[in-house]
Amino acid sequence: MRMRKKKWAEPYLLEHSDYALLAPEEYKGKWKELFSVKILHCEIGMGKGDYLNTMAKMYPEEGWVGIEKDRSAAAVAARKAIEAEDADFSNKRIIVGDGANLLDWFEKGEVDVIHLNFSDPWPKTYTHKRRLSSRAFLEKYDMILSPGGLIRMKTDNIGLFEDSVLYFLQNGFTFCEFSADYRRNPHPEDAVTEYEKRFMDLNQPIYQLCACRANEVKT
Amino acid sequence: MRMRKKKWAEPYLLEHSDYALLAPEEYKGKWKELFSVKILHCEIGMGKGDYLNTMAKMYPEEGWVGIEKDRSAAAVAARKAIEAEDADFSNKRIIVGDGANLLDWFEKGEVDVIHLNFSDPWPKTYTHKRRLSSRAFLEKYDMILSPGGLIRMKTDNIGLFEDSVLYFLQNGFTFCEFSADYRRNPHPEDAVTEYEKRFMDLNQPIYQLCACRANEVKT
Repeated sequence: MRMRKKKWAEPYLLEHSDYALLAPEEYKGKWKELFSVKILHCEIGMGKGDYLNTMAKMYPEEGWVGIEKDRSAAAVAARKAIEAEDADFSNKRIIVGDGANLLDWFEKGEVDVIHLNFSDPWPKTYTHKRRLSSRAFLEKYDMILSPGGLIRMKTDNIGLFEDSVLYFLQNGFTFCEFSADYRRNPHPEDAVTEYEKRFMDLNQPIYQLCACRANEVKT
Repeated sequence: MRMRKKKWAEPYLLEHSDYALLAPEEYKGKWKELFSVKILHCEIGMGKGDYLNTMAKMYPEEGWVGIEKDRSAAAVAARKAIEAEDADFSNKRIIVGDGANLLDWFEKGEVDVIHLNFSDPWPKTYTHKRRLSSRAFLEKYDMILSPGGLIRMKTDNIGLFEDSVLYFLQNGFTFCEFSADYRRNPHPEDAVTEYEKRFMDLNQPIYQLCACRANEVKT
């Protein structure tokens, strides 16, 4: 989702560069150390950060890094985290940047779970390569994912979902979870954002999958 | 779909054993010869045969074998085919029997496309092994499918679809087509049955996939 540019975003991000990191490459290979955790999550395209903030609170023993290239959205995410009554940054950080640069920020095998939530569907064919589930991205995810690492995807966009199923399968992944209407069953383990709730209120299905490397699955 | 038992079914099937074959094993390895075709389709659980009858008419140069274990449904399918104004059996036959016996009727690699349309969802966990997309069936399909052979599945049942996605992936198949709402786009190449049309009229999605052997796909 695009957001109107916010004038306060740049100074706010600069002022809070301890949370919205200016030089995330400094932590490459050291994220788990930074958070003192064994499991590292990375949400790519976190938007306003509602999912990241809620999940980081639900799973305080795991580390959470949110990536967002829209600087206004990232600033909103940072402000929500910082101005929260129970603000706690001990297990989360924000990277304001393009997911295409993942390899600058994460070491091989460093990330345990990658989250793609309601990513931009880029519906026109000539823009498909910008999709966060397209081949070039999947190749990068494969590099930074740990052995047994997972990619969790949710979307309301049927076209993106259908194509993504094939992208994953064509690029060495298979599925360990799969749903064409994820929220018809309770999933208390997974945070529902306000954005997501709007679709649920309209009775629109949320498509979901959890991908893992095909060669890591025992048959 | 279960059907009430029809008294006329048994005598009708006996009377038309040239179409609803009594001894289909006689044609094992010879179906393409029987029909004089290069492509052989097999619909398992064809119900009242509407899909088979329409597709056999749409693709007269290909052979179509419908399998149905409910003898009343099979009799209805036979009667519809036989009493049709433009009745033509040159490229189709019916097998009244349980799909579990596929290997008695088809030679290794003999079938090019297997169709599973709106199969019984067997929703209770302890009945899942009866599903036509469960492991034991997929292993049989793998044996009778030709190199490059396909399994085409359509269903209105979300639970069956979600589970089947995993069954296929866990048993050496991948997908070359995949849709969470197949009929939102036109597919004139694939017959719509009256049964299917009811779901479409209710705006319920038809889930669809086309599976192929994972080791036959070039990446």
